[in-house]
Amino acid sequence: MSGNTIGKIFCVTTFGESHGIALGGIIDGMPSKFPLNEEDIQKELDKRKPGKSIYTTPRKEEDKVKILSGVFNGLTTGTSIGIIIENKDYKSSDYENIKDIFRPGHADYTYYKKYGIRDYRGGGRSSARETVIRVAAGAIANKFLLEKYNIKIIAYISQIGNIICNNDIDLDFIDKNPFFITDKSKINDIDLLIRNIKKMGDSIGAKIKIIIKNMPIGIGNPVFDKLSACLAYSLMSINAVKGVEIGDGFSVINQLGSENRDEIKDNIFLSNHSGGILGGLSTGQDIIINIALKPTSSISKECNTINIHNQNKKIIIKGRHDPCVGIRAVPIAKSMIAITLMDHILINHSQCNI
Amino acid sequence: MSGNTIGKIFCVTTFGESHGIALGGIIDGMPSKFPLNEEDIQKELDKRKPGKSIYTTPRKEEDKVKILSGVFNGLTTGTSIGIIIENKDYKSSDYENIKDIFRPGHADYTYYKKYGIRDYRGGGRSSARETVIRVAAGAIANKFLLEKYNIKIIAYISQIGNIICNNDIDLDFIDKNPFFITDKSKINDIDLLIRNIKKMGDSIGAKIKIIIKNMPIGIGNPVFDKLSACLAYSLMSINAVKGVEIGDGFSVINQLGSENRDEIKDNIFLSNHSGGILGGLSTGQDIIINIALKPTSSISKECNTINIHNQNKKIIIKGRHDPCVGIRAVPIAKSMIAITLMDHILINHSQCNI
Amino acid sequence: MSGNTIGKIFCVTTFGESHGIALGGIIDGMPSKFPLNEEDIQKELDKRKPGKSIYTTPRKEEDKVKILSGVFNGLTTGTSIGIIIENKDYKSSDYENIKDIFRPGHADYTYYKKYGIRDYRGGGRSSARETVIRVAAGAIANKFLLEKYNIKIIAYISQIGNIICNNDIDLDFIDKNPFFITDKSKINDIDLLIRNIKKMGDSIGAKIKIIIKNMPIGIGNPVFDKLSACLAYSLMSINAVKGVEIGDGFSVINQLGSENRDEIKDNIFLSNHSGGILGGLSTGQDIIINIALKPTSSISKECNTINIHNQNKKIIIKGRHDPCVGIRAVPIAKSMIAITLMDHILINHSQCNI
Amino acid sequence: MSGNTIGKIFCVTTFGESHGIALGGIIDGMPSKFPLNEEDIQKELDKRKPGKSIYTTPRKEEDKVKILSGVFNGLTTGTSIGIIIENKDYKSSDYENIKDIFRPGHADYTYYKKYGIRDYRGGGRSSARETVIRVAAGAIANKFLLEKYNIKIIAYISQIGNIICNNDIDLDFIDKNPFFITDKSKINDIDLLIRNIKKMGDSIGAKIKIIIKNMPIGIGNPVFDKLSACLAYSLMSINAVKGVEIGDGFSVINQLGSENRDEIKDNIFLSNHSGGILGGLSTGQDIIINIALKPTSSISKECNTINIHNQNKKIIIKGRHDPCVGIRAVPIAKSMIAITLMDHILINHSQCNI
Repeated sequence: MSGNTIGKIFCVTTFGESHGIALGGIIDGMPSKFPLNEEDIQKELDKRKPGKSIYTTPRKEEDKVKILSGVFNGLTTGTSIGIIIENKDYKSSDYENIKDIFRPGHADYTYYKKYGIRDYRGGGRSSARETVIRVAAGAIANKFLLEKYNIKIIAYISQIGNIICNNDIDLDFIDKNPFFITDKSKINDIDLLIRNIKKMGDSIGAKIKIIIKNMPIGIGNPVFDKLSACLAYSLMSINAVKGVEIGDGFSVINQLGSENRDEIKDNIFLSNHSGGILGGLSTGQDIIINIALKPTSSISKECNTINIHNQNKKIIIKGRHDPCVGIRAVPIAKSMIAITLMDHILINHSQCNI
Repeated sequence: MSGNTIGKIFCVTTFGESHGIALGGIIDGMPSKFPLNEEDIQKELDKRKPGKSIYTTPRKEEDKVKILSGVFNGLTTGTSIGIIIENKDYKSSDYENIKDIFRPGHADYTYYKKYGIRDYRGGGRSSARETVIRVAAGAIANKFLLEKYNIKIIAYISQIGNIICNNDIDLDFIDKNPFFITDKSKINDIDLLIRNIKKMGDSIGAKIKIIIKNMPIGIGNPVFDKLSACLAYSLMSINAVKGVEIGDGFSVINQLGSENRDEIKDNIFLSNHSGGILGGLSTGQDIIINIALKPTSSISKECNTINIHNQNKKIIIKGRHDPCVGIRAVPIAKSMIAITLMDHILINHSQCNI
Repeated sequence: MSGNTIGKIFCVTTFGESHGIALGGIIDGMPSKFPLNEEDIQKELDKRKPGKSIYTTPRKEEDKVKILSGVFNGLTTGTSIGIIIENKDYKSSDYENIKDIFRPGHADYTYYKKYGIRDYRGGGRSSARETVIRVAAGAIANKFLLEKYNIKIIAYISQIGNIICNNDIDLDFIDKNPFFITDKSKINDIDLLIRNIKKMGDSIGAKIKIIIKNMPIGIGNPVFDKLSACLAYSLMSINAVKGVEIGDGFSVINQLGSENRDEIKDNIFLSNHSGGILGGLSTGQDIIINIALKPTSSISKECNTINIHNQNKKIIIKGRHDPCVGIRAVPIAKSMIAITLMDHILINHSQCNI
Repeated sequence: MSGNTIGKIFCVTTFGESHGIALGGIIDGMPSKFPLNEEDIQKELDKRKPGKSIYTTPRKEEDKVKILSGVFNGLTTGTSIGIIIENKDYKSSDYENIKDIFRPGHADYTYYKKYGIRDYRGGGRSSARETVIRVAAGAIANKFLLEKYNIKIIAYISQIGNIICNNDIDLDFIDKNPFFITDKSKINDIDLLIRNIKKMGDSIGAKIKIIIKNMPIGIGNPVFDKLSACLAYSLMSINAVKGVEIGDGFSVINQLGSENRDEIKDNIFLSNHSGGILGGLSTGQDIIINIALKPTSSISKECNTINIHNQNKKIIIKGRHDPCVGIRAVPIAKSMIAITLMDHILINHSQCNI
């Protein structure tokens, strides 16, 4: 495999399987003398942690992060930061029965066909558990962006199944409810939906909205490494993400140019159809992104599949799973945004008339 | 600037402004002994060429490509391939009046804020003209993918404004109509729409569908450099693209897991909601992608903006522009797909149990 | 910091300070289904281990490696391999007295000036201890090169101070003596020299010769990423290396072209002045490299320096140090060669007429 | 091929064969608003130009550079800079007789074995002519380093064959003599040597010394991407370079630690054995480098070789060649240094406590 590294100047490289000894990562490119401790990371991990509520997988992981290097006396030294999170509550025995079978909707089939081998325990590297290190790295980037640039990355669930939340109602509410929504009025509907889905042994998709506030102007690159392109890449690299929109996204198909272009007056933009990015560079407006997450494929409803010998099989997936994987993707999406922004902002320091 | 290179093993680097002397690129990583000549590239360029019909910008460019290196006696040598396309029909005088003014919806504002300088003639590097080299490089990748792997990349317009085409009707029709659609029955509607839009001095958005046929299984990487992530990156790097969907895309939000996961029986997938990518790797099914393109911002309707001195201005954009930039984006999208696939396929040669 | 990653397809990223909790690394790009266990790595680490003889630093480190991911049932899975080595025998108190003082010949001064902070305990990231992960990663690459390609990398001390060994006398002897030399007849001289140097509280430089046997032809790239350039890079990245020669190295200055060019007859080269690399690509002959290592700067002789307040100071460096750091660099050099070759060989799979 | 790009933030990518239509390159990452025109580049190219004196190849190339993009009204715009140099005086007919024969000491054999094809005309991509674009890119970097940081890169011939020049005698003399030496007293000896070598139909090696003045402190990276490692890489990527020394280089083998470590007093280093780099970072002292260049392999003395059918052949190389390729390597070495420094200095802007 390659492709376990993201970033050019702020580089995050990760390792680890769902049921291995530990997951970990290396954050390279962190500027020096920045205050950092394990608690800064832990509090973000706790938001993503499984087993937090009945709406997510009951797997209980402490997800205790350890910083192994790169921080001295509470400050980053400029050297690479090694982090590690040990796995505790894994039951690999749950997976013995599927070791030769490809779970539909999962990476089992493609991993096996590519590598000729796969760590089937809990999905191995393809497990959503892989994202724990993304969140840890994102916490570092996020702290830096907030403290040095006052950049705020807000992410919340804007839709689950057919329940469409009113957006941006109460941003403070996001961290106070198990669904990461801003619209208190939808709590009961979603609660009911998730309970039903769970009872059916099924799962449901979701939509996440992301808003980046206080963006400096001119972050990004004009051609291939556009800020929009790099954000799409980093978000699409999250398991289960199937769509990314910047600004008006797919709505632009039926817009007129006169409607879509954001006019400027008195030094401010009169609208934000672009989602805060023009020509691959940030405009200084809020950056607006939407992503779509597919329903968890691990459900307890029986279905058709084949095994590694190409024999037809029926499968019911046991184990502990999220009825709506989109919910726990909120802090992950936020982290990926932070990692990508951090990289672009550091690159920006080397680009303009020095 | 940085970010003018795409790819890790099959690397494409480009340069060139809309009204500069020439645009060009370097294709590095091309395997040796592959038959290649200028005509192979030229025929793809001709599809993208401006001035082909009344539906696109009347700028007339020959877009004559020259291969400067890397090919000897009709075969690639394995060395880097230099290509160049000279600019001919540019009228920079059209742009003198906007040299201090930011055209809304364009990169003028962000480039100027970032770099403190911009080549305002025709949009400089931010012009859609930049994509001519993408198409040239894509033509090389495309030929290789087709001849060595029989991979076919099909791209067509599936929607313009509110006119939704029936999909996949007649793929041979794509290259026989000026809108790159497959649905003959919509020709008149679209013709009328574009003429109206043009008369109004306005523009309209579009949607492109992409299908990749005959994909080998296992192409891609499992974590950050997922095939889906890299495709989203390369497509989002095209000017005007505001949304990318893989497979069912945003429809997954309201799908159940039991509906979305693609069951397998008799060694074939029973559906393709995933769009041919699971866990970041190709499944061997068709890869299905949709992208949204915003309406051209250069329109002749007056609007509000500011100049570099932050003074309010009214602007009417003259010059020659596409009423629907989405149409000409079809060969560009196809090229970006080809470049990205080529990179992943070459990387794949170095990954599995050797 | 950035630059903690080496390689393009076979990527090694490392972290860790001399007196931190642990050192570790991520090896990304390892082909799948290759047999690998901790013992494969451990046996190479044991060669580099400090405290092995009176000729090296008495610091006692178990250097017990743990593989945290990427291996399943004794085979690589193709996913990124996380490795970790905990620090045990560190006495940071040894270093409190030098926390504000720059040790001459060390990175103290430059790290402090660059980052505004440094982990002074044992040299932090600049310690030779950093190389333990290089050796671990190199062990993996080395095993692959040997088993899949029969490539053998031999490295030995060819000179210490003014004692010049006869080369290539007995390659089996290398691992049987504490100096990694091939020339048994020089054991006593070197033993005496090192004891004297130690008694004087001083240190001495060394030269390492490297021979790569059974190289495939055509490995490398023609322009910037020449095999020679990449080997020079990877060797010069080892602490204390101050010179690199390929083939005849500095001797070519006074050679005639008629003497230096390696003639070919009966399909074999009649000489090997080139050191097995022509035009950046391997010729299939043995690759021959020499490197020069400076004497350890940490010695117990007093010298002049300044502290962080620019005040003149006298310093005597305590702690436990190698009288000839070159000796322990032998397995490190071998590892860097293996890592670089591995990367080039994997890249080669994607380059030629496929 | 891959590997035609150097640099991470300041990236130079090149193409072109000796007898192709043109050579060219793309410089990406140049900061904006920097004054640049073709004359800035041309004057450096003129120093490298063949046919300047009887001591170098009589091939006459105008080497007229054209800037195709990235500069507007005399200032860089921050976009990628495309440059091109057309080939004029090539006589490919000279090479028809060697099209199936491998010239000893050349890349003919390795290119053919790797790629299965080679452009034999003038050595194709392996020709020293490839370096013309390095010099052009280096000229841009050099101008920036000088004007923004007052960094001066000095390179000169310090030895040809057995004639060892006294160093640093008269730096102004370098550009006033055809050998790029500083020691006027050796002019006649070298002149005589070169004439003799030429008469014999042979060639001779050379040594180049490089001094970088006014280096900022702390440029570089601590682990793999050490400044020393990156300089070694970029210099070893020049055709014919077989050895690189930083500071005392191979002399350190027989030095004591007490002699080698550079003591510090009154805020200055008392010596410069390190060559201005400690722990991979610049110390602020002069950076001192030596490189060794092998004698040209293209000489008119007959020798043994084989052809592509493995048949023994005798060969006499015609065509126009340098009796001492080291001489023309002086501006090339300077350029590679400039390109590498530029990259590291731009990266440095993103690294430290921001």
